[in-house]
Amino acid sequence: MNVLIVYAHPEPRSLNGSLRNFAVQRLEQAGHTVQVSDLYAMNWKTTLDAHDFPSRDADARFNPAAESGHAYANGLQREDVAREQDKLRWADAVLLQFPLWWFSMPAILKGWFERVYAYGFAYGVGEHSNQHWGDRYGEGMFAGKRAMLIVTAGGWESHYAQRGINGPIDDILFPIQHGMLYYPGFDVLPPFVAYRMNGIDDARYATVRDALGERLDALFTHAPIPYRPQNRGAYDIPALTLKADIAPEKTGFAAHLQDQITADRAATDRVTEEVE
Amino acid sequence: MNVLIVYAHPEPRSLNGSLRNFAVQRLEQAGHTVQVSDLYAMNWKTTLDAHDFPSRDADARFNPAAESGHAYANGLQREDVAREQDKLRWADAVLLQFPLWWFSMPAILKGWFERVYAYGFAYGVGEHSNQHWGDRYGEGMFAGKRAMLIVTAGGWESHYAQRGINGPIDDILFPIQHGMLYYPGFDVLPPFVAYRMNGIDDARYATVRDALGERLDALFTHAPIPYRPQNRGAYDIPALTLKADIAPEKTGFAAHLQDQITADRAATDRVTEEVE
Repeated sequence: MNVLIVYAHPEPRSLNGSLRNFAVQRLEQAGHTVQVSDLYAMNWKTTLDAHDFPSRDADARFNPAAESGHAYANGLQREDVAREQDKLRWADAVLLQFPLWWFSMPAILKGWFERVYAYGFAYGVGEHSNQHWGDRYGEGMFAGKRAMLIVTAGGWESHYAQRGINGPIDDILFPIQHGMLYYPGFDVLPPFVAYRMNGIDDARYATVRDALGERLDALFTHAPIPYRPQNRGAYDIPALTLKADIAPEKTGFAAHLQDQITADRAATDRVTEEVE
Repeated sequence: MNVLIVYAHPEPRSLNGSLRNFAVQRLEQAGHTVQVSDLYAMNWKTTLDAHDFPSRDADARFNPAAESGHAYANGLQREDVAREQDKLRWADAVLLQFPLWWFSMPAILKGWFERVYAYGFAYGVGEHSNQHWGDRYGEGMFAGKRAMLIVTAGGWESHYAQRGINGPIDDILFPIQHGMLYYPGFDVLPPFVAYRMNGIDDARYATVRDALGERLDALFTHAPIPYRPQNRGAYDIPALTLKADIAPEKTGFAAHLQDQITADRAATDRVTEEVE
């Protein structure tokens, strides 16, 4: 299979650099083909701005979404952007590897998404009506592909626990995993997160490396996070709120995870309604 | 009072540009002094990298936190970074204004935080022991200052509701409001969020503008979000999980909000223990 690693750390001789090299080797040994977008090494242009659209009318008001859609549809994108889009088309799985900086991805990786995720490519795709609110959240350009985060954090695992001061790691990563990966159709695997990574010794490095290895071995078999698809009945459209009979006791990010028991009951409810 | 607006939109003739101009005017009319960091207009360097530290040993391994701490402590920072830090010292309140791109701030603003929030300035501050885990989450360089987000979104308010498909807006913004603003000591006001902002007409613009005006008028009187301070007894240190008797039924981001009833009960519990 084809695996793209989008990697965002400025120092190749870092822990992240070692884990990246390990990941490439492990995946290739398993018979996969690997490409790495090493954003710092590529000197990736981070900022989405009007310079991304050299053929635009320089006096016109700059609307990033409209400009992006026009450039994407007409082959007028910058080459660095088009090349990354080609890698995404090629990949069967995408790994995003980064250190957690201020509880999110480094700016250089955020800028990769802003520039590569063109309108018509990663959003603004598909029928947009009161029955179908775009091909998104479970549909879209990347349907059938897998994605997984590989994240290093300086803080302790307990700091990111259900009652940890930073907030639960799954909630911190929800805007990325659900909002940036599931949105254009990826099946998102549970993240690989390594904690307390400042100044680790060889023994702990070996433990982290081996744990990552197991996750990489399961890249195409591990069950994805069971987010709810947008257009298959769970949400009222266009309000895009969960229907009243779906997990009625749940709010927040967790409400968007399918719960097998709840799903079964909702199906039963609907069958009952149909019988009545 | 002194107000700093950090503004991240590429087009001055946009809705965001109009709201920014309005905010400056409204604040100045109220007698405040305003500075604007217009990141796109400043051609802000987004990416934190080794070029930020021109006096470093170019052959040494690049550790961003260590390098940042050294440069901050020894007056070796780049001038653009030092200038933004001076603005933060000067400000009594900081407004961060941006469009929500992929459920977070634009990369250019994320990069502003990564570069301006030096080690020793916004993190790595204060005693670090098993009694006091750094001056953070309620203490730190910005204690006594206020901060507020001004956010525009294309999506509808219902999409960001408690059961909306994007997740609740307060949870989406938690890593910013709690993790980037409360962390170094800001009192964080509830955000001003304007929804469905694509192609709005004059009447809706007037409504949004007036609502923003009211929030700006209350900038120094509105009650901040009641996050729990880290070092005043609510958390076990160093695990940094909420103590078992504090809001025992709560998990997730919401657990870090002080609940007056819960706080009273916890105080009563502790008094009871002392009596026993």
